[in-house]
Amino acid sequence: MKKSSVGEFDCSIAKTVSTIGDTWSLLILRNAFHGMRRFEDFQKHLCIATNILTDRLKRLTKAEILYRVKDQDDARRVQYRLTEKGFALYPVLVALKDWGDKWEGNYDQPRMVLRVRETGELIPPVAVRTSDGRALHPQEVTPTLGEGADELTKELVEFRVKD
Amino acid sequence: MKKSSVGEFDCSIAKTVSTIGDTWSLLILRNAFHGMRRFEDFQKHLCIATNILTDRLKRLTKAEILYRVKDQDDARRVQYRLTEKGFALYPVLVALKDWGDKWEGNYDQPRMVLRVRETGELIPPVAVRTSDGRALHPQEVTPTLGEGADELTKELVEFRVKD
Repeated sequence: MKKSSVGEFDCSIAKTVSTIGDTWSLLILRNAFHGMRRFEDFQKHLCIATNILTDRLKRLTKAEILYRVKDQDDARRVQYRLTEKGFALYPVLVALKDWGDKWEGNYDQPRMVLRVRETGELIPPVAVRTSDGRALHPQEVTPTLGEGADELTKELVEFRVKD
Repeated sequence: MKKSSVGEFDCSIAKTVSTIGDTWSLLILRNAFHGMRRFEDFQKHLCIATNILTDRLKRLTKAEILYRVKDQDDARRVQYRLTEKGFALYPVLVALKDWGDKWEGNYDQPRMVLRVRETGELIPPVAVRTSDGRALHPQEVTPTLGEGADELTKELVEFRVKD
């Protein structure tokens, strides 16, 4: 099996990472979740080269994660806003933040704490949970073949069963 | 502000992505969560060039996400296993899978379905939830400054408040 790019793997993780997985794209998305919408604001806050920023905004727009809309204050400019598909990335970003806070040296002094807007209640770390909310350790989870399983997926699932 | 690499940003998302964010590393981790442990098994399943695989296993070991242990069946070989820090990446991987299943064209026919091992119960998508389990839309979440907040974090949080 030859792949010209990793994104060709028939795997949701590979596809997702090839769409959003470079660090600049994720930082742009992080800022978009904070309400940032203008090219110059991204450029200034991230100190990102304009050609890289242009490229990443184009890619995220093409992937329908961001959409372009005219700036209400200045019709010559555009804003980049999250689509529904973009908003759906929130658990990925918060899971990355949670892990980094805990394991990459910022646990004692997190830079940012997420709270429920209405109540101020602290939001617990993102976890894989049962439908009644119990956090699961990976070893309590078992993968089963879905309808779209291909040969490589079967190999993986069977690999686990053997282990 | 000049950064020689994105990982130098004082941000948990940037740090996490610079540690695990290339696609090969994530696919190696995905396979490790399926119980894969041997160099040759990774190589065969991912069709990855041995020099890239060697490099990524080295990086993941250096980051203490994997650790090396002697293969019990063959003392000349090593196995790569997830550390506690590695296991803690599970929510990130499942969130990536969930999003890809839903938005990158595999929703109707997912390749793999995750279930609770003991009961067979389906596992709902990873979400940002309140402590009593309600899934939150990003717009219901508000960031507040943590003790370790730096200037860039303040700018982001204030940006949101202004919006």
